[in-house]
Amino acid sequence: MIETPYLLFLGDAPDQLAAKVAQGIKDWRPDFAVGQLRLEGCKADMGLPDLTLIEAKALGAKTVVIGVANRGGMISHAWKKFLVEALEDGFDLASGLHNLLRDEEDLAAVARTTGRTLHDVRIPSVNYPIANGEKRRGKRVLPVGTDCSVGKMYTALCMEKEMQTRGMKASFRATGQTGILITGDGVPLDAVIADFMAGSIEYLTPDNEEDHWDLIEGQGSLFHISYSGVTMALIHGGQPDALILCHEPTRTHMRGLPGYALPSLEALRDLSLTLARVVNPACVVIGVSVNTQAMSDKDARIYLAEVEARMGLPATDPFRYGAGKLVDALDAV
Amino acid sequence: MIETPYLLFLGDAPDQLAAKVAQGIKDWRPDFAVGQLRLEGCKADMGLPDLTLIEAKALGAKTVVIGVANRGGMISHAWKKFLVEALEDGFDLASGLHNLLRDEEDLAAVARTTGRTLHDVRIPSVNYPIANGEKRRGKRVLPVGTDCSVGKMYTALCMEKEMQTRGMKASFRATGQTGILITGDGVPLDAVIADFMAGSIEYLTPDNEEDHWDLIEGQGSLFHISYSGVTMALIHGGQPDALILCHEPTRTHMRGLPGYALPSLEALRDLSLTLARVVNPACVVIGVSVNTQAMSDKDARIYLAEVEARMGLPATDPFRYGAGKLVDALDAV
Repeated sequence: MIETPYLLFLGDAPDQLAAKVAQGIKDWRPDFAVGQLRLEGCKADMGLPDLTLIEAKALGAKTVVIGVANRGGMISHAWKKFLVEALEDGFDLASGLHNLLRDEEDLAAVARTTGRTLHDVRIPSVNYPIANGEKRRGKRVLPVGTDCSVGKMYTALCMEKEMQTRGMKASFRATGQTGILITGDGVPLDAVIADFMAGSIEYLTPDNEEDHWDLIEGQGSLFHISYSGVTMALIHGGQPDALILCHEPTRTHMRGLPGYALPSLEALRDLSLTLARVVNPACVVIGVSVNTQAMSDKDARIYLAEVEARMGLPATDPFRYGAGKLVDALDAV
Repeated sequence: MIETPYLLFLGDAPDQLAAKVAQGIKDWRPDFAVGQLRLEGCKADMGLPDLTLIEAKALGAKTVVIGVANRGGMISHAWKKFLVEALEDGFDLASGLHNLLRDEEDLAAVARTTGRTLHDVRIPSVNYPIANGEKRRGKRVLPVGTDCSVGKMYTALCMEKEMQTRGMKASFRATGQTGILITGDGVPLDAVIADFMAGSIEYLTPDNEEDHWDLIEGQGSLFHISYSGVTMALIHGGQPDALILCHEPTRTHMRGLPGYALPSLEALRDLSLTLARVVNPACVVIGVSVNTQAMSDKDARIYLAEVEARMGLPATDPFRYGAGKLVDALDAV
């Protein structure tokens, strides 16, 4: 569990896109960020107050989150100088970088002497159990995709926001690095050892109140041959009561696999339900979430209407048009 | 790759079953074992010559394989003394124990000074790639089970033996600790990091001659919620041309999951084929392998005939009645 609130470190981000972790925190957990810190040449801006470490400390910040991807996999001299200072000033550090903070000898040494924590969210910090398949109290919904990176995380986050606005009990459950940094907790599923994948998701979504919903962050796709085993573990560990089908209609082939076509929404529905019902016979598909960012408003609306008619399910782009339809459907489960 | 031939270390095995790794090597790679070494009180016997380290060395043995499970997860003083001696005499050590040889400081130190290798086959020794899904030359068959531990490894090994007898090109590809120790090579799939599972199976079953068959050792079951992600990765990484359905008819629930019933062979067939055809549209189910060890000969034959009639597929217990039927079916693919 990463201590909040955060100071968002944007480093020397070459553009806004490089700071997508910071953007995610700003969008989904605005209360977690007291401000941002940018080095010379930084081209990203979250519209938050620019703070020094001392100012952030005075505002109660506990952790400096590296909200930006680094270039070439190296932690630069300029970054390092700042990160050491942050530890010395009493901040923990949290990072989703491929190269781990703990592998940087100087950072590890300063963290030891100052008693601060280095959170490398790319790798698990827990010894997860093997899944036992026992029925847990409370409800769970899982977005599943026709492909990777079709908006499963955003679907869950949009729904969480809408549900909390309505006063429903809902918790986004992060299973990837960005989600973990946004919410401060979760399971880095793609880095978990094979035998413990499903168990890590049981651990992430424990017994809860009967009317509480876990919104589990999806990963991969049952139809993406590189990562399908990860998706399978999410379904069988997550014990979903409800599934949401996620799709990006303009994609011409599976991400990173030029020879592989995307499945139909019908194929995704049938396969996902078959698998989910192994662990929860009552599981249902409640709606379709379409990532329409590459489509005009007119085309998006036509497409969504067509999907609704064809699938007999509510369909929306929750980021563009709100998650209301999906939450209505969930509320009826 | 573990160097052969082996000396099989049976330690102080309390019974024959505790030495199942040694039994597997004796049954499936008899040429790999020059003899056995037993400590006082050993109740297992492979029917191999009892050799000292010196005698085994003279017969060309390169590696001492720990062919027995240890009690309580500790490497005892008696074992340790022998293992140190083996390293000093120029043997490598290979083990599938949960506690790793490399974590025993004295063994690690002696291995360093003598330049010998400690093979802990429970954990991967390779950085596997992410699966790319590219079509590979040669053919592959994968046994899939209604449950864990229903005879998938034995099915593949029986078929390999029969195929080699017939002069067919066939290689058993190990994906578990016992299989790796039996054959000296393979992927410890249950210990691979989630993102690299399917890639590890692509690595294990590379391009080959057009008429060569890889017989991939199965793991878990699509219907076993603790390990289904591992099975999924085998299907999508293995790119199977043929599947064999494996079943143990007397089991009353999924192994370790009292609340879960076994699926029907029809459900296993349909789900496995749907998934396999994502990566290989030409994949077919060629037969059924039934573990009948808990049944009388008469009951087993009745059951197999019933399955053949119902499924329209050849069905046999390859360990009890030979793998001929399954190999005939494979030969027709």
